[in-house]
Amino acid sequence: MLIYSLDMFGTAVFAISGILLAGRLRMDPFGVVVLACVTAIGGGTIRDMALGATPVFWITDTNYLWVIFATCLLAMLAIQNPRKMPWYFLPVADAIGLAVFVAIGVEKALRFGASPMVAVIMGVITGCGGGVIRDVLAREVPMVLRTEVYATACILGGIVHTVGLHFGLETAAASLCGIATTLSIRLAAIRWHLSLPTFSLRSSQ
Amino acid sequence: MLIYSLDMFGTAVFAISGILLAGRLRMDPFGVVVLACVTAIGGGTIRDMALGATPVFWITDTNYLWVIFATCLLAMLAIQNPRKMPWYFLPVADAIGLAVFVAIGVEKALRFGASPMVAVIMGVITGCGGGVIRDVLAREVPMVLRTEVYATACILGGIVHTVGLHFGLETAAASLCGIATTLSIRLAAIRWHLSLPTFSLRSSQ
Amino acid sequence: MLIYSLDMFGTAVFAISGILLAGRLRMDPFGVVVLACVTAIGGGTIRDMALGATPVFWITDTNYLWVIFATCLLAMLAIQNPRKMPWYFLPVADAIGLAVFVAIGVEKALRFGASPMVAVIMGVITGCGGGVIRDVLAREVPMVLRTEVYATACILGGIVHTVGLHFGLETAAASLCGIATTLSIRLAAIRWHLSLPTFSLRSSQ
Repeated sequence: MLIYSLDMFGTAVFAISGILLAGRLRMDPFGVVVLACVTAIGGGTIRDMALGATPVFWITDTNYLWVIFATCLLAMLAIQNPRKMPWYFLPVADAIGLAVFVAIGVEKALRFGASPMVAVIMGVITGCGGGVIRDVLAREVPMVLRTEVYATACILGGIVHTVGLHFGLETAAASLCGIATTLSIRLAAIRWHLSLPTFSLRSSQ
Repeated sequence: MLIYSLDMFGTAVFAISGILLAGRLRMDPFGVVVLACVTAIGGGTIRDMALGATPVFWITDTNYLWVIFATCLLAMLAIQNPRKMPWYFLPVADAIGLAVFVAIGVEKALRFGASPMVAVIMGVITGCGGGVIRDVLAREVPMVLRTEVYATACILGGIVHTVGLHFGLETAAASLCGIATTLSIRLAAIRWHLSLPTFSLRSSQ
Repeated sequence: MLIYSLDMFGTAVFAISGILLAGRLRMDPFGVVVLACVTAIGGGTIRDMALGATPVFWITDTNYLWVIFATCLLAMLAIQNPRKMPWYFLPVADAIGLAVFVAIGVEKALRFGASPMVAVIMGVITGCGGGVIRDVLAREVPMVLRTEVYATACILGGIVHTVGLHFGLETAAASLCGIATTLSIRLAAIRWHLSLPTFSLRSSQ
């Protein structure tokens, strides 16, 4: 099934972003695996805990773990022999993973009886949660809270997804509309460095 | 109902403390919403996950989310046109929210069959958990672990609450006793800068 | 029962590592208790939430909390009158606690129907999760992700445990094999400062 393949692709891509950070922190191989897991399945784990969808998804379907382990192995070998990747490779792959994760989160929340608003939030958590945990472990202000239109893309994708369902789209069609929305906003943001006006306190608080 | 109104008040106040931090970190509007949510409902979410009270409270009652969204909107508009607030406004509002959250956490834990000691801990988690997550995301040593008599006030409020129930007080009366205790200790701590003697290691560990 | 006593011992040891960190951060007594709790029961709490084993273990068995409270009291008194501890005392005690926590996590995950691979991961989470939360609260890159063969010892111990069960060992015997493995690897790592080759990115990412 298309969504499931994309889910595995997203898992691998998110794992890579964890692996790259682990490499910068000079971790040992098992530390690398830990950070890859946290990034790839952290968001969905929080979602499932909050929904009460336990045991969480990667306990019942261990394919996620295998994908992460294989990615770690390949990444560590490949990076020993690094080749030039175009700069946009990772952000674009990340955008695809993000879009799919949001759709899966929205979908699962609705299946557990959540309201559309909560479903959008669960989509955002699924997409962004893993990266937040990764950045917290690495002591950075979470990328999600800083990067151009990152959470924003997830929210808009989730809204299109739920609105599509509300107007009678099939489950898969609504998912694909949501994915297309999140993805195109993120790609546009990457391409043109879009960002929202930030909200800042002028007075010294 | 009084407790429910106070709960919504506390949610709004805690959201504001998240919004202020987001402003200092110069986040975009959706980052602001994320940090407001985390601060306002993070503690209760951990409590519900630990109790197994899933789906967690804000999934089943979306009023919490609406209050947070409205607060974000108002706060961003209001802070564009800042007016002088007295310095004690926020700490006092925060103390009220804290006291109510503790009472709600104690109450819910007992309803789920927890022992009084666990109920007090759940009260502390409900009151302090959101602020801890907020501070972790902003890379500060959590305020709760540093501030004068903050967790301490929660613990004493929770103890008064459960002891009151043990001696036959009605649910609402015991809650109010607990709230009064937490609140007055916090207000006293704010007013006179009370703090417990800290525990520090003399030897270089 | 042996495992249960060791579990309480591990809880106390992990609490001490939280207390020591709290002392370095100059927290007040209740902050100390909070950090001790987080370190000692944080890992098992994440495990239980992910498995859906709610209410989590320390809600149903409050002995864990009493052990932590007693440890806090004793530690604060003892450290007021510090005596020389041999340098290896804490790492060795920590290794014992770690080994036991891993075995308990593996065991509990299997009892909840997890696959062997997931059980090993749950063992690692049980052993390492509390320390990770502790370090995040103290704004350090988690020790677990840096220290010589820490997560690695847990993984190997968990694998021996599950493989033992697979080849027909009794529950207790398999647990003890797993504990012996984790413990001896950690002790060897402490004694000879073993570490895995780290994985680092040569290129400036």
